[in-house]
Amino acid sequence: MVFGLARRDLRPRVPLRPGEGQKHHLTSLEGLAALSLDALSSVAYGPESIVLALVAAGTGALTATFPVTLAIVFLLAVLVVSYGQVIAVHPDGGGAYAVAKKDLGPTAGLLAAASLVVDYVLTVAVSLTAGADALASAFPALARDKLLVCLIGLALLTAVNLRGVAESARVLMLPTVLFIVAILGIVAVGLLRAHPAATVGKDLSFPPHESLGVLLLLKAFSSGCSALTGVEAIANAVPTFRAPRVERAQRTELMLGALLGMMLVGLALLIRRDHVAPRGDVTVLAQLTAGAYGTGWPYYATNLVVMLVLGLAANTSFGGLPVLMSLLARDNRLPHLFGLRAERPVYRYGVLTLALLAALLLAATGADTHRLIPLFAIGVFIGFTLSQLGLVLHWAREKPDRWRHRALINGTGALLTTLAGVILLTTKFLAGAWVVVLAVPLLMLLFSRVERYYTAVGEELGLGRIPGPPDRRTASLVIVPLGEVSKLARHAVSAALSLGDEVVVVAVHADPARQQALREAWDRWNPGVRLDLIDSPHRSLVQPIVDYVQRAAEGGRQIAVLIPEVEPRHRRYEILQNQRGLLLATVLRARTDVVVCMLPYRLGV
Amino acid sequence: MVFGLARRDLRPRVPLRPGEGQKHHLTSLEGLAALSLDALSSVAYGPESIVLALVAAGTGALTATFPVTLAIVFLLAVLVVSYGQVIAVHPDGGGAYAVAKKDLGPTAGLLAAASLVVDYVLTVAVSLTAGADALASAFPALARDKLLVCLIGLALLTAVNLRGVAESARVLMLPTVLFIVAILGIVAVGLLRAHPAATVGKDLSFPPHESLGVLLLLKAFSSGCSALTGVEAIANAVPTFRAPRVERAQRTELMLGALLGMMLVGLALLIRRDHVAPRGDVTVLAQLTAGAYGTGWPYYATNLVVMLVLGLAANTSFGGLPVLMSLLARDNRLPHLFGLRAERPVYRYGVLTLALLAALLLAATGADTHRLIPLFAIGVFIGFTLSQLGLVLHWAREKPDRWRHRALINGTGALLTTLAGVILLTTKFLAGAWVVVLAVPLLMLLFSRVERYYTAVGEELGLGRIPGPPDRRTASLVIVPLGEVSKLARHAVSAALSLGDEVVVVAVHADPARQQALREAWDRWNPGVRLDLIDSPHRSLVQPIVDYVQRAAEGGRQIAVLIPEVEPRHRRYEILQNQRGLLLATVLRARTDVVVCMLPYRLGV
Repeated sequence: MVFGLARRDLRPRVPLRPGEGQKHHLTSLEGLAALSLDALSSVAYGPESIVLALVAAGTGALTATFPVTLAIVFLLAVLVVSYGQVIAVHPDGGGAYAVAKKDLGPTAGLLAAASLVVDYVLTVAVSLTAGADALASAFPALARDKLLVCLIGLALLTAVNLRGVAESARVLMLPTVLFIVAILGIVAVGLLRAHPAATVGKDLSFPPHESLGVLLLLKAFSSGCSALTGVEAIANAVPTFRAPRVERAQRTELMLGALLGMMLVGLALLIRRDHVAPRGDVTVLAQLTAGAYGTGWPYYATNLVVMLVLGLAANTSFGGLPVLMSLLARDNRLPHLFGLRAERPVYRYGVLTLALLAALLLAATGADTHRLIPLFAIGVFIGFTLSQLGLVLHWAREKPDRWRHRALINGTGALLTTLAGVILLTTKFLAGAWVVVLAVPLLMLLFSRVERYYTAVGEELGLGRIPGPPDRRTASLVIVPLGEVSKLARHAVSAALSLGDEVVVVAVHADPARQQALREAWDRWNPGVRLDLIDSPHRSLVQPIVDYVQRAAEGGRQIAVLIPEVEPRHRRYEILQNQRGLLLATVLRARTDVVVCMLPYRLGV
Repeated sequence: MVFGLARRDLRPRVPLRPGEGQKHHLTSLEGLAALSLDALSSVAYGPESIVLALVAAGTGALTATFPVTLAIVFLLAVLVVSYGQVIAVHPDGGGAYAVAKKDLGPTAGLLAAASLVVDYVLTVAVSLTAGADALASAFPALARDKLLVCLIGLALLTAVNLRGVAESARVLMLPTVLFIVAILGIVAVGLLRAHPAATVGKDLSFPPHESLGVLLLLKAFSSGCSALTGVEAIANAVPTFRAPRVERAQRTELMLGALLGMMLVGLALLIRRDHVAPRGDVTVLAQLTAGAYGTGWPYYATNLVVMLVLGLAANTSFGGLPVLMSLLARDNRLPHLFGLRAERPVYRYGVLTLALLAALLLAATGADTHRLIPLFAIGVFIGFTLSQLGLVLHWAREKPDRWRHRALINGTGALLTTLAGVILLTTKFLAGAWVVVLAVPLLMLLFSRVERYYTAVGEELGLGRIPGPPDRRTASLVIVPLGEVSKLARHAVSAALSLGDEVVVVAVHADPARQQALREAWDRWNPGVRLDLIDSPHRSLVQPIVDYVQRAAEGGRQIAVLIPEVEPRHRRYEILQNQRGLLLATVLRARTDVVVCMLPYRLGV
């Protein structure tokens, strides 16, 4: 039995080809590189969203950044301890959706799936906008075109993921290390300096229009919780670690917690000491970067690394959502379409759906990170809560040593994450959280409606029951629609003769002269098959054939219509061919129950 | 042998159902109603374009409007006499394209077709913009949204024509009569008044920036020739008249010429007497309307009638271009697609192409009538010239009584229209005529390239030659891809047994447990058909089947793949079904030469 609720858990991390896996299993450090990107990259927008919330009470209120950050780091500590237990209990990892479905029942499964879908989409959107913010901090000229930058980034990610990417921990190692070094460097160098090395951005004034009360602190806290997204990834990927898995994964989770905590606290200290406030088009992180490193090349390099890591964090969703959608499709909760992989091992409909939804979200918010943040964290907290809750149930059921103690830890975790979720919802409802409140139940409804349909279809098809024996062989009639006597006709009649007991060719011509010419050519060819000529008073080619086929089908024989298709060698000529055959096939399939067969004839031109 | 070169000639005026035609044949007056809309409606923009051309030399130059109009009316008289002869020689009417192809050779045919295509598109665009101008004259608030108004009108026309319209002369009678009464009323009432009853629009100043020389007069003449578009329609619809056809058609042509001439001369007189100059967002015709009727309800009513008639004129292109495109498709000069009529007697691809091109043109010119006019008349003059030229050749060939005299008339007509065309081209080249100069040869190139392709295909298919006899009956193998044992499997195996000498079912499952379950269910069902289970290490469902089929095809047998499709009762559920089957069919058709058969299974849900 597996468990572990999270977003980053469904990526096809286990390599596709069997036998390739073992040597690629992760050490603790590699695990940190592969699985922490999403969590660590959230320091690019988490602290900033605290600052932006508090500044509503004027720049003086920004001193509260530090205590708010401490509260968030406390929640982080609870989550890390909690996930340490999740890892121990569920060494097989597993997806939030699969696990919630199994342990908490179908409704929880649907809730987990819906919140995961919302979250994957938001991860893409927020990571892209935050990446664009970082880029615009380095190159202010781009500040006006953030939406464009985001959409270009999204198009790039979509294209790469439609081709299929072989993701590997080693590729992620370098940017992750660079990012950790850069951020911890900012904290260390910044705290060593007596004053900021440089300031960037424009001075803005912030007249207080709210007082620094409990409500504002809760708002700041809930905004800052966006920094916690992604800490669940490790618990869901335990099988990708090298033995001893559990210990390595727990160690990685601890490292992630420690790193993220240090970064958050360090950045908060700097924000307090330097009285950092929002400044024009420059992010808080970029201000701290300039304060530590000055505005020379390290400033540009750091912003670019931050942008790169955020782009990679967005890419994790492209690994995750299509796989989740394929699992939902396999469970009959999404159209089976999403379970299709054609020629590449890529769920292209899932990738395209994710891209489309993210693009809509980016366009609707104008690629503004701080309009996306309130939507972002709610789905994550649904996942956190379901995860802890499942563990409490697990302890209560299994009753191991000190189970009450363990249940208390996870229960506290669940309580705190529920609380954080409720705070987030209530303080941010009008600021955008309503979108999530609307989207999650709608998605659940969609899943269950789709499931109901497939169940009804399965019932009607008698899935799981043994059907009656197939009919005895009935006589078959193959109808071949043709326009003229040619090599194509020969090809089609040959194929039809081998498939049908009887073959008949039909031709529709409105023009008596052409009918006559065809009849004469047919008689000269004399292929030993009957030719039926049909009049078409309305000049329609399709309807007369459909009528003919419907009349033929009344005889009780198995009818097949064999439509020869000319296949040009070059794709660009396809528009010039076959449209009539395809139209006929479409109409026949919609209106009759006969077998519709397409026979290709390949051209050299 | 038929002849007659024009744009309005290809509409399916002869009713579609046989036997319905006779009683609907037109009297002279009905013919005027049905066929003169396009010509008469051009008084809405013709005189105005003369005024707009002349005003470049200041308002003083506007006195030249009257002589320029007289020159245009002279050309109109020549055309009317000329078309009277066309009607006598070609009582069967006929399309410009078909006739030019027959009498003047293939290149002239291509030229006629290309200029007709351009002209149909421009008729739609100009009629819509002029209609929007008329509407904006009545309701100035709409002046800013002309493009939107045009696009809404275009969408409306497209929707109506996609459904198919049964156009009738009787329906057109009322708006035509209203229009004629309104315009002649403006002339009569306007000339009776000593001064204009009211003025509308804003005073504008026109500093002269050009002198009133020959060049400007030629420019004004060529712009004003846009008023002549449409006079060829009657000559091309002679068969739709009641007997005696020729006399009735000639009488109608004369009436059209007289009416149009009176309108043009009358409006020009008013323009000269009232010193009408362009005024803001109000058309010249609207100014004359206000001058005659005041600004009460007759002003609004007249503008609305003008708008309605222009909309109906745009609609004539929707009758004409799709039919022309279907003729071109039948001659292998456009993709056969354009010759397809599915369930309604509507060439939907032609309708959509026309809508798309007109929309592009409207968007590119910002729905500005006076940017479209220079493009408009050139195509028409190509048609006029080809028509007269064809008649000259006809006289020279047939040598009837007084053939030299007749040839002289048509030769003069051809010379004058050529002259007008050349003037138009040279004076308006940079103002937009270059678009037509580019589009016409490009279209001719497109037609001939498409023709070359179809010729090569016909060559390869041995069209027109008798092929060898069909192959003797080869053994057939029907492969049925299935996922599980169900009623669908029973349905598919039954159909396959009646089509193939041998039937084999293939199933792809990545999961050994599901493979095992399927094998067991199959053995219990025991349909007497072999089941081949295929492994899919990459979890792809399509590629393993394609590989299997390709291996089977090496045996030399006729292979058919029978793909059962679940057909939901409601269209909205289609997204939930069959995607896998369609994907498999697409890949099989692209990669193999086997027969691909689709077998529907209709659901009750």
